Amino acid sequence: VDIVLGPNRYGKAEVRLVRVTRGELHEITDLNVSVALAGDLAGSHLGGDNAHVLPTDTQKNTVYAFAREYGVDQIEDFGLRLARHFVESQPAIERARVTIEEYPWRRLGPHSFQRSGPEIRTATVYHDGARTQVVSGVSDLVLLNSTGSEFHGFARDRYTTLAETTDRILATSVTARWRHGGVDSWWRESYVSARDHLVAAFTETHSLALQQTLYAMGQRVLEQRPELVEVRLSLPNKHHFLVDLAPFELDNPGEVFFAADRPYGLIEGTVQRDGAPPSMEEAWSG
Amino acid sequence: VDIVLGPNRYGKAEVRLVRVTRGELHEITDLNVSVALAGDLAGSHLGGDNAHVLPTDTQKNTVYAFAREYGVDQIEDFGLRLARHFVESQPAIERARVTIEEYPWRRLGPHSFQRSGPEIRTATVYHDGARTQVVSGVSDLVLLNSTGSEFHGFARDRYTTLAETTDRILATSVTARWRHGGVDSWWRESYVSARDHLVAAFTETHSLALQQTLYAMGQRVLEQRPELVEVRLSLPNKHHFLVDLAPFELDNPGEVFFAADRPYGLIEGTVQRDGAPPSMEEAWSG
Amino acid sequence: VDIVLGPNRYGKAEVRLVRVTRGELHEITDLNVSVALAGDLAGSHLGGDNAHVLPTDTQKNTVYAFAREYGVDQIEDFGLRLARHFVESQPAIERARVTIEEYPWRRLGPHSFQRSGPEIRTATVYHDGARTQVVSGVSDLVLLNSTGSEFHGFARDRYTTLAETTDRILATSVTARWRHGGVDSWWRESYVSARDHLVAAFTETHSLALQQTLYAMGQRVLEQRPELVEVRLSLPNKHHFLVDLAPFELDNPGEVFFAADRPYGLIEGTVQRDGAPPSMEEAWSG
Amino acid sequence: VDIVLGPNRYGKAEVRLVRVTRGELHEITDLNVSVALAGDLAGSHLGGDNAHVLPTDTQKNTVYAFAREYGVDQIEDFGLRLARHFVESQPAIERARVTIEEYPWRRLGPHSFQRSGPEIRTATVYHDGARTQVVSGVSDLVLLNSTGSEFHGFARDRYTTLAETTDRILATSVTARWRHGGVDSWWRESYVSARDHLVAAFTETHSLALQQTLYAMGQRVLEQRPELVEVRLSLPNKHHFLVDLAPFELDNPGEVFFAADRPYGLIEGTVQRDGAPPSMEEAWSG
Repeated sequence: VDIVLGPNRYGKAEVRLVRVTRGELHEITDLNVSVALAGDLAGSHLGGDNAHVLPTDTQKNTVYAFAREYGVDQIEDFGLRLARHFVESQPAIERARVTIEEYPWRRLGPHSFQRSGPEIRTATVYHDGARTQVVSGVSDLVLLNSTGSEFHGFARDRYTTLAETTDRILATSVTARWRHGGVDSWWRESYVSARDHLVAAFTETHSLALQQTLYAMGQRVLEQRPELVEVRLSLPNKHHFLVDLAPFELDNPGEVFFAADRPYGLIEGTVQRDGAPPSMEEAWSG
Repeated sequence: VDIVLGPNRYGKAEVRLVRVTRGELHEITDLNVSVALAGDLAGSHLGGDNAHVLPTDTQKNTVYAFAREYGVDQIEDFGLRLARHFVESQPAIERARVTIEEYPWRRLGPHSFQRSGPEIRTATVYHDGARTQVVSGVSDLVLLNSTGSEFHGFARDRYTTLAETTDRILATSVTARWRHGGVDSWWRESYVSARDHLVAAFTETHSLALQQTLYAMGQRVLEQRPELVEVRLSLPNKHHFLVDLAPFELDNPGEVFFAADRPYGLIEGTVQRDGAPPSMEEAWSG
Repeated sequence: VDIVLGPNRYGKAEVRLVRVTRGELHEITDLNVSVALAGDLAGSHLGGDNAHVLPTDTQKNTVYAFAREYGVDQIEDFGLRLARHFVESQPAIERARVTIEEYPWRRLGPHSFQRSGPEIRTATVYHDGARTQVVSGVSDLVLLNSTGSEFHGFARDRYTTLAETTDRILATSVTARWRHGGVDSWWRESYVSARDHLVAAFTETHSLALQQTLYAMGQRVLEQRPELVEVRLSLPNKHHFLVDLAPFELDNPGEVFFAADRPYGLIEGTVQRDGAPPSMEEAWSG
Repeated sequence: VDIVLGPNRYGKAEVRLVRVTRGELHEITDLNVSVALAGDLAGSHLGGDNAHVLPTDTQKNTVYAFAREYGVDQIEDFGLRLARHFVESQPAIERARVTIEEYPWRRLGPHSFQRSGPEIRTATVYHDGARTQVVSGVSDLVLLNSTGSEFHGFARDRYTTLAETTDRILATSVTARWRHGGVDSWWRESYVSARDHLVAAFTETHSLALQQTLYAMGQRVLEQRPELVEVRLSLPNKHHFLVDLAPFELDNPGEVFFAADRPYGLIEGTVQRDGAPPSMEEAWSG
């Protein structure tokens, strides 16, 4: 044979779980859980022999059953429990990745809530039997500085027409993920603090480039959170173009902007602790 | 001729405007503005004679220019200014509808902001030269009661299998619009108050049907806000199904739910002040 | 009381039904069905008395059961059957509206299919016990003429900067709905023909305004299809802007365009047969 | 320092380009182009020194200018030209990835077109100065077999409730990408053939598992297309659940299905030619 099966995985994606904890005050946890399993799955691919395939329907059931048996609490813990379960209980499964999105709600009353957001807390747990990696994160965190952003001194070529500026709007929708050095962080406190440091660095950085802001955000998180070893950021530059009002005999001193959809700049970067243990790449994707 | 031109309108949709007000503390206003104009436009339809057609590009320019000349402040005011302008300045234009969405931001610093939400404030202003109607509203306001909702005693037929329940999750994404009796409400205070009364009614109503909750929401707004004469609500019933955990020898006392996407119930209704002046229907759509 | 319940309705939205007809060649029908019922529903709104409320869950069951009992065939027929059923079988229900989207598939083999599109066939059936109205339509039908479109001679004011043009791209995503005079059209043939005439009129009209194209589309459908009495069109003007390449010492003779997302022009209009019976407006919305 | 900059890249994403080729018959090409550049960009991250940063605005301009200067023709060629240009012309840029989506249109007339689809042709070109990698692909290709799919003999545990089946609907939305061994394939013919072989393998495989279908799809492409060395597939299992009609005294012999949104199975796998040169992973993502 000269054609072979390469890397593969399978699982149930986007299991929507709402967990209510009842008491005098109800609590709710609103999750989107995705499971991806890998291991000795060649039989299914090559001949339709499913003896090693735990159905994705079973994976879904496990998410709901574990939510009842163990509760959810922090999504990193819930992900760890699920990832370990699949690898430890299924002989053919060697690696599991559990990705969880948590949607925020604000309390309105003893058992009443309002969806807040748009920002989403995320966690990806990866376990291969021997090693475990936890990546926490945030997405859809939309930030804007209405001044304090410049862009000039850039490279130029035949196709460059962009004007230099010393005052522009800087806006982005943050997708950030940070890797824990171990598997026993105080997940809630770690999340809240890392997220707040990201926001503070965005807010406090006088920016000469979105790249500079990106690095400042990652650097600050690593400086402040010793349990973290790496931060990956994806920052779309949500362009706000100053509208030319001169045809109407109006000036526009940084006041009226067109918020464009596409295209957008996209700045992606990693900030890491020197000498950190190597990352398991499968734990980031998905 | 036995084929004729019927009702028609045209305009620029989804003009994305971000307005910065500079000072020691910057303020930002983030809008999506849509204009629809109607009048003597048969020439354009029947023969491509555009003498009566103010380009939609001009309408867009006007939105940006007015934001500079007059500021935005409350979206009802900005809509009134735009709607009147088009009708008063263009001889062929007899009716204008301006629809505005305002996206909320939370302050992080003197010139830093975070997008909050998901809820969106809305306004639709309609002006026909003689009469003016203002409809304010909110959309994407997602609310959930984790108890205090029942559903039983309903009609049954051959196709009914639904079990009665005395305790379910009630969740919805509110789209509400309320009509002002005049054009001189205190827009900001009126909006905040109407929106808060909607939320309070949802939270405080022990619900025997989403219809009951809908009516309570509209009723409360009208009771509390004399400047309003009509409330229209569209409430999807975002079903949360209790997961059957019995196959796993687990009970599920109202704790673990599957949040379904589709299908969903959709409850729509109007609550109005008796004897209110008639509504101009064109002012609601779009 | 000075606060009263106004118009209201409720139902199950977006019931996703795939119907397979088995035989030597399988056939599939892929639908999204929404039901809205109105009638004597005050009890539910005012006091949570659901005796008149047939659950939306039952409505969903009915869609699936009818698909088995009667098949689907043409969506207008399926909608008629459902709409009449709810009004005739539920004493409190006086009006029913059934809205159906049908997604197209292309045959690949005896039981294999590929989703085609993006265009969607639609139907809305409204029945109030005495009268019945059927509206057929198409949405997401995206058309483009790369020449044969002009726009000039338009109204101007202080805010007008648009250049006149005698050659531009005209592109739109057609949402069209057409009302049948009766309830016994040959639905399939009527749909295919009406849709094809819309496309032909778009293609063949040398356009001086998108309004002119809109009218030509509606006019042609009514001229060619005697069973139809009214056509409503919503045509976003999907702007394609000629890119200015002069800074790079390149001309651009109508070759390189930026396809913009927002804002967009939006042209909406109705073409109707003179003397047609009046429309029931509830049958159009939703 | 113990905090360092890791991998990073930046570029303009989602440049929407429509290219018209004028002649007796017009041709149109409708693209979404994204550029990501990497190299010596530490200055921008660490100190806001942008001397090495070619603005993303310039990248956008280059896309449009190249479309005029050289035309587009096959997206792999257009991507190669752009990727090489950025690396060769910018001293600080060492690696470029250009990702292109091409939206299909069907001809209606000499200069008239209708958007077809939903399937999208894709290409990702990666160039690092020394090496170049081209990945072609397709996305949003939605396929369905209404029979010829079984699923049984799977692993079971405490949480397994799924019934075995010998006849189910198998439906998926194909995202497939295939790596060329070189950079001189006949792109158009290669694309059409690879895509058709994917479809044929889906259609002709009697499936015992979606994994088996996935492997068959990749295997067939590699068997038939010697210029390709690796195929990566991501296949969501778009579940169609047979509706239980027994409560209504109706059977359901594989005819009436509920098409579910979430959750869904997700099967991902790679099929590769044994001994193929190693892949450059940066060329796949984005």
